[in-house]
Amino acid sequence: MAVIINEALLKKAEELKRPLKKHIVYPEKTVKIINDKNAFQELRAIADKKISFPVTLSAGDEIIFDFNDHIVGYVSFSLDNDGLVKITDSPVKLQFSFGEFPLEITASPEEYKGGLGKGWLQNEERSYVFTPCEGSLERRYSFRYLRIKRTDNAAFPIKLSSLKVCTVSAVDIKDAPVLKTDDEILKKIYDMSIKTLKECEQDVFEDGPKRDRRLWIGDLKLQAMSDYGIFGNLTLIKRCIYLFAGATGKHKMIAPCIFPDSPPFVDEWTFCDYSLFFISCLYDFYKNTGDISLIEELFDTAYRQMEAVSEKIDKNTGIINLHPFIDWCPDLDKKTAILGVYIYTLKQLKELGELLGKDNKKTEAEINTASKLLLSFYDEKTGLFTTPSGQISEHSQVWAVLSGVLRDEQAATLCAKIKDIKTPFTMRTPYMMHYYIEALYTSGLKNEALEFIKNYWGKIADAGFDCCPEIFNPENEFESPYNAPEINSACHAWSCTPAYWLPKLLGE
Amino acid sequence: MAVIINEALLKKAEELKRPLKKHIVYPEKTVKIINDKNAFQELRAIADKKISFPVTLSAGDEIIFDFNDHIVGYVSFSLDNDGLVKITDSPVKLQFSFGEFPLEITASPEEYKGGLGKGWLQNEERSYVFTPCEGSLERRYSFRYLRIKRTDNAAFPIKLSSLKVCTVSAVDIKDAPVLKTDDEILKKIYDMSIKTLKECEQDVFEDGPKRDRRLWIGDLKLQAMSDYGIFGNLTLIKRCIYLFAGATGKHKMIAPCIFPDSPPFVDEWTFCDYSLFFISCLYDFYKNTGDISLIEELFDTAYRQMEAVSEKIDKNTGIINLHPFIDWCPDLDKKTAILGVYIYTLKQLKELGELLGKDNKKTEAEINTASKLLLSFYDEKTGLFTTPSGQISEHSQVWAVLSGVLRDEQAATLCAKIKDIKTPFTMRTPYMMHYYIEALYTSGLKNEALEFIKNYWGKIADAGFDCCPEIFNPENEFESPYNAPEINSACHAWSCTPAYWLPKLLGE
Repeated sequence: MAVIINEALLKKAEELKRPLKKHIVYPEKTVKIINDKNAFQELRAIADKKISFPVTLSAGDEIIFDFNDHIVGYVSFSLDNDGLVKITDSPVKLQFSFGEFPLEITASPEEYKGGLGKGWLQNEERSYVFTPCEGSLERRYSFRYLRIKRTDNAAFPIKLSSLKVCTVSAVDIKDAPVLKTDDEILKKIYDMSIKTLKECEQDVFEDGPKRDRRLWIGDLKLQAMSDYGIFGNLTLIKRCIYLFAGATGKHKMIAPCIFPDSPPFVDEWTFCDYSLFFISCLYDFYKNTGDISLIEELFDTAYRQMEAVSEKIDKNTGIINLHPFIDWCPDLDKKTAILGVYIYTLKQLKELGELLGKDNKKTEAEINTASKLLLSFYDEKTGLFTTPSGQISEHSQVWAVLSGVLRDEQAATLCAKIKDIKTPFTMRTPYMMHYYIEALYTSGLKNEALEFIKNYWGKIADAGFDCCPEIFNPENEFESPYNAPEINSACHAWSCTPAYWLPKLLGE
Repeated sequence: MAVIINEALLKKAEELKRPLKKHIVYPEKTVKIINDKNAFQELRAIADKKISFPVTLSAGDEIIFDFNDHIVGYVSFSLDNDGLVKITDSPVKLQFSFGEFPLEITASPEEYKGGLGKGWLQNEERSYVFTPCEGSLERRYSFRYLRIKRTDNAAFPIKLSSLKVCTVSAVDIKDAPVLKTDDEILKKIYDMSIKTLKECEQDVFEDGPKRDRRLWIGDLKLQAMSDYGIFGNLTLIKRCIYLFAGATGKHKMIAPCIFPDSPPFVDEWTFCDYSLFFISCLYDFYKNTGDISLIEELFDTAYRQMEAVSEKIDKNTGIINLHPFIDWCPDLDKKTAILGVYIYTLKQLKELGELLGKDNKKTEAEINTASKLLLSFYDEKTGLFTTPSGQISEHSQVWAVLSGVLRDEQAATLCAKIKDIKTPFTMRTPYMMHYYIEALYTSGLKNEALEFIKNYWGKIADAGFDCCPEIFNPENEFESPYNAPEINSACHAWSCTPAYWLPKLLGE
């Protein structure tokens, strides 16, 4: 078994679990979803009726309830009959379909051919033998729209006499600071971002509350970084760091993700950039709290991430023989970018080592070696980084900038031209775009960073999202890493970093 | 509103509610259902494997669990994953199909075209996001076979680590007396009958635990009559009598059925024979308990049933202008049979009236009038009863015998030849057959009664039933009053009266 469990750390993670905050919310109106070529994914939800309970449902009826905002929670409802003499004489069957966005409601589950398990499709069918009755679905759903369709064939009507959702989150949106700006677009982007952050804060920092509902360290790094200034949920950040440290994969590498239920499960495979980001999580924790005790406790685990990667570097070719994530860009040669990640995180490790008075020789040597290797992929002529296979990608440039191997003016020049590179290997996810924004920021290109956020996330807002989606390509609204856009997550933690950047960029 | 509620009586019914007895049962083996021309409905469940938990389920797998006997209860189970590194990374979908008999498992719900609501089909699909988890279905099911099919498409296996059913009933089978006989067929029939009685005793005497799950007075009459000697559940019998008296239909007629949930609901329509059987329920209660207080309390309600029918008798034609049930025989002219029911129940009413010192004039006059009207349908030449439309049916003869309008030897002669009448209007349900047996018994034809039970219910046992079905036609195994044999109830109270007759017939 390649998984290494540290019970003491997992116990600490368990002790940091807190009850979730709950709110009861009700649908505001019903909508119809119509085809509209000008709308995102060619679908538009248009207001139908203001809701007045009870709502009558006859066989075959379907109603789409709109909760007016993205919610994460548990549905419950009451069914009643039509009075003493119009009784429910056979069981009522109701089909529930949940959607964060209209396509999720209209796509047929029978035709689903996506690469992810179809169990993620948010639909259920239930039967209710007698009315009146109280119904509830035990699964937690993430949605704005809920379609209820009566699928039995009995002649009597029934009444849906109430419908509510108990929403859950570790934090309360009203505790987030208000963004000081008059720019309505930036306000909207900020609101979407803090909403996304909130929706993903549950028993752990989830990547997405609809799917995969688990703790990924690539997401955690960005969520925690954003959260210090928004909700300041240090308990949850610490809990998640302990979870990763408490259940590591082979060679004691930090797992890419943790399944939150007890005992925490981890996947056997790793992403080496994700493992290295454990260092960043510790680094950011110290930077934001000044608390050194957690760093002392987990420094060795962080240090081990360097060692594990170090063992796999071919010092001749500069190739790290491990799999990184970097981004969802098909056929991307990630070898240059991962060197950048390695240097970026090792510089943080070095700083932590200095803080603790550790021997930093190995770290420094690794930084030097890796920096030389990375610079060997720099083409003085074009001023761009390439890869061992000769590929020019946006990703290589971004991570080269973030590694700090270039002189400041070199970095700024490179950074300024990233978006002008003619290459099919472009950033695909808001996750990768965060690192682009960081590269702009550290290169002093703050206006460009703000403009990029306003442009890209502004289009997300225009498309009608309530939160920040996992993936958003204005050129292809049906893009999906899973070949099924309906399974895409419309509320995804790694896209929420405007919650970090906007206060920073506007406050300076 | 045609329903008349007597809160005081309903309160008494509520107070007589008792907790159900629960037992945990486990499946014994798995089965395969194969086609077999010699088996009932051409399907046979053959033993597959002895069960050893955990049972592994991969996508697409299906397993049919056999609980080795009919059960009524609530399913719960545990799901687990394959260890630390083989995790459930997308939700598992399980489809549950319950069957009292094999056809219910093999029939496709999509192709259901029955006349009853398809909500009665016993199937559910559920999703489970994380494992390990505990699952349960909140609906109560009635079944012997449970097929679990994994319908998601994810690549990982899961483990069903436990599967159990918490069975419920108001009574315990071990409290039933043992039938004193060496005849294995009669023993088996008796066991099926008391099992049926037990399975249907829940919060009320249900007609069938699979469907309709409610209190019908036609069934209650036979259930209570049987129960006095088997489980002696006087509390439940009294509770059900109060329920009927507490919620009556228009003209204060006893409703044909009560929906057991609170407030009790009743249908607006009536079956006049069913309304009259309220008299029989009171009569039997007194005869079996000697307790006169319930009769005193509810005599007026019983008396009202006579009045309501009396108002609808055309004294010239002998036609009662109300709908009776009698039996499920298509195109049956029920007019003669209902006169028989009227006289049969009025004679019981008269006896109760005498007991209480009531004025019986009206009752006696009605018996006399109805007897004359009934006899006007007697054809001296054939020795058979006909109907206003000239129809010869088995039903008319049975109820004429039970009415007692014939002299004893006339009745015995008629009764002896009922099964030899060449008519398409034959008894179709075990319910109607009970009255035939009663007619044989009261005519002194006890051996014939025993032989009939052994022959008919013996064939039911041979077909592989665990309990007594709602309908059973050895000539057409797919017969269904709902045009869908899979929706037939295989455990139906009105078929359980061998539990009453066998001890009586063998004990004398």
